[in-house]
Amino acid sequence: MMALEIAARVRAGEMTAVAVAEAALARIAAANPRANAFTTVLSERALAEAAAVDARIAAGEDPGRLAGVPYAAKNLFDLKGIPTTAGSRVRKSAPPAARDAFLVRQLSAAGAVCLGALNMDEFAYGFTTENSHDGPARNPHDLTRIAGGSSGGSGAAVAAGLVPITLGTDTNGSIRVPASLNGIFGVKPSYGRLSRHGAFPFVFSLDHVGPFARSVADLAAAYDALQGLDPEDRAQAPMPPHAVTPGLAAGAQGLRVARLGGWFGRQQSDAARDAVAAVAAALNASATVEWEMAEAARAAAFLITSAEGGALHLPTLRTRLEEYEPLIQDRLLAGALLPAAWVNHAQRVRAVARDSMAALLEDWDVLLAPATPVTATPIGQEMLELDGVEVPLRPSMGLFTQPISCLGLPVVTVPVPKADGRLPIGVQLIGKPWTEALLFRAAAALEARGVVAAPVAEGFG
Amino acid sequence: MMALEIAARVRAGEMTAVAVAEAALARIAAANPRANAFTTVLSERALAEAAAVDARIAAGEDPGRLAGVPYAAKNLFDLKGIPTTAGSRVRKSAPPAARDAFLVRQLSAAGAVCLGALNMDEFAYGFTTENSHDGPARNPHDLTRIAGGSSGGSGAAVAAGLVPITLGTDTNGSIRVPASLNGIFGVKPSYGRLSRHGAFPFVFSLDHVGPFARSVADLAAAYDALQGLDPEDRAQAPMPPHAVTPGLAAGAQGLRVARLGGWFGRQQSDAARDAVAAVAAALNASATVEWEMAEAARAAAFLITSAEGGALHLPTLRTRLEEYEPLIQDRLLAGALLPAAWVNHAQRVRAVARDSMAALLEDWDVLLAPATPVTATPIGQEMLELDGVEVPLRPSMGLFTQPISCLGLPVVTVPVPKADGRLPIGVQLIGKPWTEALLFRAAAALEARGVVAAPVAEGFG
Repeated sequence: MMALEIAARVRAGEMTAVAVAEAALARIAAANPRANAFTTVLSERALAEAAAVDARIAAGEDPGRLAGVPYAAKNLFDLKGIPTTAGSRVRKSAPPAARDAFLVRQLSAAGAVCLGALNMDEFAYGFTTENSHDGPARNPHDLTRIAGGSSGGSGAAVAAGLVPITLGTDTNGSIRVPASLNGIFGVKPSYGRLSRHGAFPFVFSLDHVGPFARSVADLAAAYDALQGLDPEDRAQAPMPPHAVTPGLAAGAQGLRVARLGGWFGRQQSDAARDAVAAVAAALNASATVEWEMAEAARAAAFLITSAEGGALHLPTLRTRLEEYEPLIQDRLLAGALLPAAWVNHAQRVRAVARDSMAALLEDWDVLLAPATPVTATPIGQEMLELDGVEVPLRPSMGLFTQPISCLGLPVVTVPVPKADGRLPIGVQLIGKPWTEALLFRAAAALEARGVVAAPVAEGFG
Repeated sequence: MMALEIAARVRAGEMTAVAVAEAALARIAAANPRANAFTTVLSERALAEAAAVDARIAAGEDPGRLAGVPYAAKNLFDLKGIPTTAGSRVRKSAPPAARDAFLVRQLSAAGAVCLGALNMDEFAYGFTTENSHDGPARNPHDLTRIAGGSSGGSGAAVAAGLVPITLGTDTNGSIRVPASLNGIFGVKPSYGRLSRHGAFPFVFSLDHVGPFARSVADLAAAYDALQGLDPEDRAQAPMPPHAVTPGLAAGAQGLRVARLGGWFGRQQSDAARDAVAAVAAALNASATVEWEMAEAARAAAFLITSAEGGALHLPTLRTRLEEYEPLIQDRLLAGALLPAAWVNHAQRVRAVARDSMAALLEDWDVLLAPATPVTATPIGQEMLELDGVEVPLRPSMGLFTQPISCLGLPVVTVPVPKADGRLPIGVQLIGKPWTEALLFRAAAALEARGVVAAPVAEGFG
C-alpha cells in the first residue's frame, strides 16, 4: 500500500496504526534478511508510536496527514536512544542520540511511525552501499546486484515494499543513485531547503536531505511534511520570493522542458539513453541543450568532498584508521592532505558553473538527464565499460548526479521500470532552486501517463 | 574644507569644481612628496570631471550631492585607462582598466572628482604600507612614522588634507588601522553591503570596501553615495528587513553601548586604553562584556587569509616570486601550501565565533574596542612591546581589527586626537550586520561632544 492510502484508511478508522506497524514489522522480519536494507529494527518504538496515533484517533484528535505511515531513516539521522552509526564501525559505540533529527520529528508530528535505521555506505562516502561492516544492501530487483548508495538501504527498503517512505541524504548523488537503481522516486531538494540538523555531516556545502517513495503523491506528501524552518540548522534558508509552490494537480502543461546533451548524452548504456528519451517524449521535450561546465563541476565536487570529508574525519583517522571501511580509508586520507589552494580553485570553478547553469535555467523549467549511466551492477564489480572505455564503476555511478548537486539545484528522480528489459533506471528532473513543485508536477504527469512507475520488486510484497 | 562644505559651495555657484580641483592638485604637488600618499595623480581626468560638473551647473542640472568634491582611490580600485597595480611591481605592466570600479562610478555619479590612486601594502597584505616599490606612505602627523595599512595612502591623503574623501579596503583591518594611525574617520561596512566589483581581490569572504573622511557627516555622505545594488558583484546582498537606516540627527540616545573586555582590554598602550575609556564615558557605556572567541577568530582569519591569498597568487608566484614585495613573499608561499583540512577547521571556528558574537550583539547596539594597540610607530620598526612581551609589530597592528572583520560586522572607526599627547588613535564602534546607521549616530554624538575629531595634521593644509 502507498503511504497516502495507509494514512487515509488509518484516519478513517478502517485500520489501526498498530496493525499497520505489525504488518510492516512482519514484512521486514521476512524480507530484510534478503535485502539487508535495515540494520536496526525499532519494534518497540514503532508499536508505541502507532499506539499513540491510534489513541489520538480514538480521542477524536487529528493524527496527522501521514497517520500510521511506516517509515525508516538512513543510519545518519539521529534516532533517540540509539547511536547514529553513519554506517561505520567507528561509531558503533557512539553514545545514543539524545533526541530525533529534525526531519524525523517532522514525520512523527505528521503521524508517521518510525520502524528503524537503514544501511548505507560508511559515512555516506560511496554510490554502492557495499558496507563491509553491515554487509551490502541488496537490490530487491536482483539480489546479486547493488542497491546503489550511499542511501542504498533507503532505496532497497522502499523497492522491497518494506515501508512506503524512507529518508536519505545526497551529497554527490546519494539519493538519486539508489532511486535510479531500485526503480523508485526520490527528491534531492534545493540546497538549504530542508533542515539537516541531527543528520551526521559529510560536506557542509554539498549535503542535502530528502525522502524516497513509490509514488509522486507519496513523495510530495513526505516532502511537505519535512518542510519547516529549523532555528538549529546552519544552512537552511527561508523561502525566497521566487519559490514555486503550486500543487501536483496543475500538470506539466506549459513547462519548458529540455534534455541536457554533451556530458549528459555520453558514457551511458542504451537503457539510460532510452529512459531519458521516453521521458523527453512524454513531456514534449524536443530540444537538447549543452552545459559546458559539467565535467569541471564534477571535478570541483570531488575535490571539495574529499577535502571536507577528510578534514571532518582527520582527528579520528589519526588513531582509528584501520576501523574505517577499506573503500574510504585512502580517499579520506588523501582528502585530508589536499592543499587549500586546490580546494580554493575548485570553489571558484563551482561558482562559475553555478552562474552558467543559472543562465541556462532562465530558458528552461526542467532539464532531463540520466540519474545513473547503467542499471544496477553486480555487487563487488570493480570496472564498467562506457563508450568502449573501462572506467572504475563506483565513482562512475555519480557521473550525472555529481555535477548537479554541487550547484544546489533541486532534482526529482523518476523511475523507468524494466529499462533494460528487466531492471529499472532513473531519470533526473532538474530545476532552478526552490522550484521543487514544478518538478513534482512533471513527475506526476509522467506517472499519470505510465512512463514512470515504482512497482514493488518481484518476489517481495 | 570638508567634502559637504565644498559640495554646498560648488552647488551654490560660490566656487567652481575646476577651481576646487586645481587647488587640490596644487596641494598634492606641494605636500605629496612628504606624505607619499598618491602614487598616481590624474590631473587631466580630475580637470575634465570638474569641468563636467561645472557644465551641469551652468546648464541648470543637478550636479550631485558630492558636486566637485575631490577624492582618490586605493591602488586596487580600477580607474579607467591606468593599470590597477594593487601596489605591486607584478602588475605595473598590467593592461589599463577598461572602466572604473563600481564604487568609483558611484562617486562620479554623485559629482565627486577623482584625483588619482593611492599607496598601499602590496596586494593589501599588510598593516603598515611599507611598500618597497612605491616607497612607504608617511604619517602626516609624524613623517618618520607609518600611515598604517594596507590602505595607508588613503589614510595619509585625508589626514594631510589633500582630499576630503578616499576609498580603501579592509580584509583584516586595512581601513581601521590607517584610520586609527592617521586620526581620521573610516567605515568598514557589513560584509556584502557595498559592491567590490572592479576592486582587485584578496580574500573573497573577508574583503570589504569603504570610505575615509575627516567628519562623520562627510563619511556618511560618501557611504550613502557608494550604496547601490551591483548585479556584477558576487558577494553583495540585498538590504535585509532588519537593516537600520535612520539619519545622523537621531543622536546616540537609547543606544546600548558596552566595552569589549578580555582580549580587547589587553596588549595595548595607555593611549589605546584611554581613548576607549573616553569614548565609553561619552556614550555612557559602563558595562564591559567578554567575548571568548576573539583569539580563535583571529587565528582563523590568519589561516583563511594566507590560504586564499596564496591560492590567488599561486600561478604568478610560480614564475615571478622575486618580483613580489619581500614582506609578503613567504606568507603567500606558505599560504599556498596550507592543507585544506586546516582551512576547513578555521572556517568552522569562524562560524562558531560568528554565532557567539551574534548572541552578544542581541544585548548591545555598539561594542567598543581599540582600533590599534598603539599610535603610529616608526617606519621600519620590527618589534613592539605589549604587556611586557616583545611581539612582531606588523601583524600586531591587527590585534583588535582582525577578529571583527572575519565575522563581517560593520565598524566605524573614530579618531581620538593627541591620544598619547601628540599622535591620534582610533576606537572601533562595532555593530550588528546592516546597522551602520546606528554606528554613524554614535560617532556623530562623539564628534558633537568633541571627544573625537580629525583635524588636518600640523604642517599640512
